Amino acid sequence: MDVYSFLEAVRKKAPVVHHLTNWVTIYDCAQVVKSFGASPVMAHAPEESAEMSGLASALVLNIGTLTADFIESMKIAARAANNKGIPVVLDVCGAGATPFRDMKSAELLDNARIGIIKGNSSEIARILGLDVRTRGVDAEHVGHDLRDIARDLAGKRDCTVVITGKEDIVADIKGTYIIRNGHEMMSHVVGTGCMAASVIGTFAGASPQDITAAAAAGLCCYEIAAELAVKTAKGPASFKENLFDRIFSLTRDEIASLQKVGR
Amino acid sequence: MDVYSFLEAVRKKAPVVHHLTNWVTIYDCAQVVKSFGASPVMAHAPEESAEMSGLASALVLNIGTLTADFIESMKIAARAANNKGIPVVLDVCGAGATPFRDMKSAELLDNARIGIIKGNSSEIARILGLDVRTRGVDAEHVGHDLRDIARDLAGKRDCTVVITGKEDIVADIKGTYIIRNGHEMMSHVVGTGCMAASVIGTFAGASPQDITAAAAAGLCCYEIAAELAVKTAKGPASFKENLFDRIFSLTRDEIASLQKVGR
Amino acid sequence: MDVYSFLEAVRKKAPVVHHLTNWVTIYDCAQVVKSFGASPVMAHAPEESAEMSGLASALVLNIGTLTADFIESMKIAARAANNKGIPVVLDVCGAGATPFRDMKSAELLDNARIGIIKGNSSEIARILGLDVRTRGVDAEHVGHDLRDIARDLAGKRDCTVVITGKEDIVADIKGTYIIRNGHEMMSHVVGTGCMAASVIGTFAGASPQDITAAAAAGLCCYEIAAELAVKTAKGPASFKENLFDRIFSLTRDEIASLQKVGR
Repeated sequence: MDVYSFLEAVRKKAPVVHHLTNWVTIYDCAQVVKSFGASPVMAHAPEESAEMSGLASALVLNIGTLTADFIESMKIAARAANNKGIPVVLDVCGAGATPFRDMKSAELLDNARIGIIKGNSSEIARILGLDVRTRGVDAEHVGHDLRDIARDLAGKRDCTVVITGKEDIVADIKGTYIIRNGHEMMSHVVGTGCMAASVIGTFAGASPQDITAAAAAGLCCYEIAAELAVKTAKGPASFKENLFDRIFSLTRDEIASLQKVGR
Repeated sequence: MDVYSFLEAVRKKAPVVHHLTNWVTIYDCAQVVKSFGASPVMAHAPEESAEMSGLASALVLNIGTLTADFIESMKIAARAANNKGIPVVLDVCGAGATPFRDMKSAELLDNARIGIIKGNSSEIARILGLDVRTRGVDAEHVGHDLRDIARDLAGKRDCTVVITGKEDIVADIKGTYIIRNGHEMMSHVVGTGCMAASVIGTFAGASPQDITAAAAAGLCCYEIAAELAVKTAKGPASFKENLFDRIFSLTRDEIASLQKVGR
Repeated sequence: MDVYSFLEAVRKKAPVVHHLTNWVTIYDCAQVVKSFGASPVMAHAPEESAEMSGLASALVLNIGTLTADFIESMKIAARAANNKGIPVVLDVCGAGATPFRDMKSAELLDNARIGIIKGNSSEIARILGLDVRTRGVDAEHVGHDLRDIARDLAGKRDCTVVITGKEDIVADIKGTYIIRNGHEMMSHVVGTGCMAASVIGTFAGASPQDITAAAAAGLCCYEIAAELAVKTAKGPASFKENLFDRIFSLTRDEIASLQKVGR
């Protein structure tokens, strides 16, 4: 897989990536998009969320700090994105923690065409309908093969499914990518999961002709930057600073020598 | 006091710490919990705030950017926390700045059992009913002995009271801890006060059998990390980065050699 | 222009700067105010936004993540600021991206006396009524002389107008300052524009007798710190960390040797 070509597309096109996301990690979601060379915008008022999606190249939804009203704005934005034909990413953050999250996730999936569903293992398992719980926003062990779960949900919803974890799984009905980049330090930083969804949206927005490959390439780039970042990190905060810096300066050579994407 | 044993409990149990907190420092509140080895979750929708508290080990409330609706969600979460028997921390951020904050703080205290009330000197004095004002969210001089104020409020509300400042006071009806760790640089970083409340919630969630001692131990660990962080800091932002890194790697020896907790 | 004297006023008076701002960069807006030695406060509930403005020395409004309700709170705060006679800064973030933003910006301008309107080139051009669009929150090319646009809007609204960009323009009906400090790296960091509005509010709050000169001096100090910060930066995140550190320690000599303010 020519991962670098997807990064090049991001840097050349500088897609506008519209977000309706959570209030905890909203800054980092914006900064990760900007660090890759794209243009983030966050606008959630129902009066304008459709128009903002209309000038964007991708839409990222994240239910981390959802409210009922906020979900309604997401539906408006997602339908506008569908009308324009741009990719929609849904991060089902915290699905499986409360029935409210499960219900609202289902509403979003039923009300618009979501191109990419992204979550950790227990979140995605829950969206598939399995009887698992999420511990707040941290993954719980799921007693099933994760590749099967991803493929099953991809088939059921006719979309791309991303499960992040020690290895990332990116599946659609045609096939599955496995990304083995990244570093354990990412799990000690709040927002690395949310940022992954923003990265996926950014890459899908720049390469809408193959959003599954774009999602895999985006995760690979992000996690290669994480591997480079951890080398000089003293803890989670210096790691995060390095991560943004490394994303900003990521080169073709770094990607070529470190990428671990299989099928 | 065996401060390290309280940190060990946090790292072993990795408590889920539910927050309904302010939008300014919400990321840092989450990251400080995670850096200590615990699991933060932020969920404020009234439809799920009770259930999220139900899967947590502690609840942290912070009125920094309160609205009337948000306070109603806090009441729901606090009552759920009371039903489950987990500690509830209330950061009365900005109490004394406006009558609205004073009124909503009183409502929270009257509607649920708050185990730990935390604030700076003028905030806590105001909660006790003294005629002082807070300058936005920064402490004003209070013309009374702060230990007396803490003890008076602890007796009046039958809870633990924490006053942060140059020396921190942690008082309940049985006694008072004084923590003399920390560094003046903390006052130049937005959110160090909010993070203190999250730290207290984290430690109380891991050691609910003695939340007063847990609060004192948590503040001590946090402020020792600050002392270590300032050594290589060039200003408030590098200090904050170092602070998270130092919390993450904090050792028994560092605590033993630096802790200044008296009674 | 004696730029340093304006910084000295900020550090001596430590003005309280009240914000109703966007949720993406709210932390950085608070931290930039604090790093300059002033006291930020963020309070948006309609029940208290007037009182909080009443104890402040300046009010900063930013429509980045506006909602209809939030704009109503801004109107209340702005009228209270007018009654107290403190400067009001309005960052018309994203004006020109959607009709909703244009309409709400006009409402704010019509409902209170806004002392300083701040934006990038396409945002300010749109507020003047020109037929331009903003690409999300990033500036688009405007086919007019920016100094003319700033002066025209300053005359039309009888206020100070700030256009940020490669060179910053600060204009009122009496004259125009041009600030040529800063660095291209600022454009790779989310929130540098929002922080500029907070800096302007901070300096105007400390020197209300000449808010145009104060805005120019504040931008100059902020951007000199950026020039110093970039020297040891490896990318956008280390740059931002350095920026806060450099603001905190900014000296009279650094300003004297680097300031590029013309008329």
